[in-house]
Amino acid sequence: MRIVLVGAGGTLGQAVAAELGARHDIVSVGKTRGERQVDMADFASVRRLFADIGAFDAVVSTAGHVHFGPMDAMGPPEYGVGLADKLMGQVNLVLAGRERIADGGSFTLTSGILTDDPIRFGTSASMVNGALEAFARAAAIELPRGLRINVVSPTLLAESLDQYGPYFRGFATVPAARAALAFAKSVEGAQTGQVYRVFG
Amino acid sequence: MRIVLVGAGGTLGQAVAAELGARHDIVSVGKTRGERQVDMADFASVRRLFADIGAFDAVVSTAGHVHFGPMDAMGPPEYGVGLADKLMGQVNLVLAGRERIADGGSFTLTSGILTDDPIRFGTSASMVNGALEAFARAAAIELPRGLRINVVSPTLLAESLDQYGPYFRGFATVPAARAALAFAKSVEGAQTGQVYRVFG
Repeated sequence: MRIVLVGAGGTLGQAVAAELGARHDIVSVGKTRGERQVDMADFASVRRLFADIGAFDAVVSTAGHVHFGPMDAMGPPEYGVGLADKLMGQVNLVLAGRERIADGGSFTLTSGILTDDPIRFGTSASMVNGALEAFARAAAIELPRGLRINVVSPTLLAESLDQYGPYFRGFATVPAARAALAFAKSVEGAQTGQVYRVFG
Repeated sequence: MRIVLVGAGGTLGQAVAAELGARHDIVSVGKTRGERQVDMADFASVRRLFADIGAFDAVVSTAGHVHFGPMDAMGPPEYGVGLADKLMGQVNLVLAGRERIADGGSFTLTSGILTDDPIRFGTSASMVNGALEAFARAAAIELPRGLRINVVSPTLLAESLDQYGPYFRGFATVPAARAALAFAKSVEGAQTGQVYRVFG
């Protein structure tokens, strides 16, 4: 399979590239790194990405930015960051990718544990993750040509504990390589409309 | 209690007004109807609404618009409608309302069954509903002053069967008056961060 991996340079993306790259051809995409660059929040940029890449069988996203901060310091602009980037950025990959992906191809997006298990400072992340998971369940029943879509919802990664641990006290972590298995299940399996929770 | 009810003129809003109005003072708000008007999608309009209303104890929203349509005819602008109106419109009620609501007050928003049980043409509704539910779970743990927030997720209303039935074949309906009970539970109860599903 030829797999377009957006967010390939990140902690999770590198683990997904290692897992899927063992058996497939990975096109690594990043905002500033990788073989190709894309601004996911810009639909025209996403369409150009897929027009330039040629044939592909799967799109995997481990990318997306939200604003973390205390809710009492957040207004519409702060929520807008996550809606434009982590939510619509990943949805844009589906909306533009469906025009060119091979029959029977798959989309795998990333949400996160905060859909189910919120933390302080995480209201935007929870909002965006909940949107992605419900969108995938709905899109799964409308996508044509045998196309599939799933979401992976990882807990805090062990590799990110130093950076984010203070916000996630009491949360079990998983190694990025464990979370990467869920992406392989999505891409190489046959299910659709699923949320694969990797909560440790 | 003095309760600000946004969407008071709609099918669900009228039932909520009947249920809560039996025991409380309702300020009815609509886009074009009611005692007060607001454009929920415009944060400045929402702030003006609360500045004009005076003291209040609860905000209930049964309002919000999304684009319904076949996914293959939907792009970023169609998803943007629901993100701006039903999602951020209702979130705006929380972000602006929290500045003026009484201690121990509550916010009750409306999502819908499509979070859990998708239909054709409903990808935007599912996205928005999932976002609202996860946002409420997260906001509940950050709101100050004993403020509470819950979401009601109704199935198709019996009163809407003629209009929307063809899209919801096989779904049980509930009378709007039954769905209205969940709003009373949220406003007059003590729970927070809940999604009250009224699926029939």
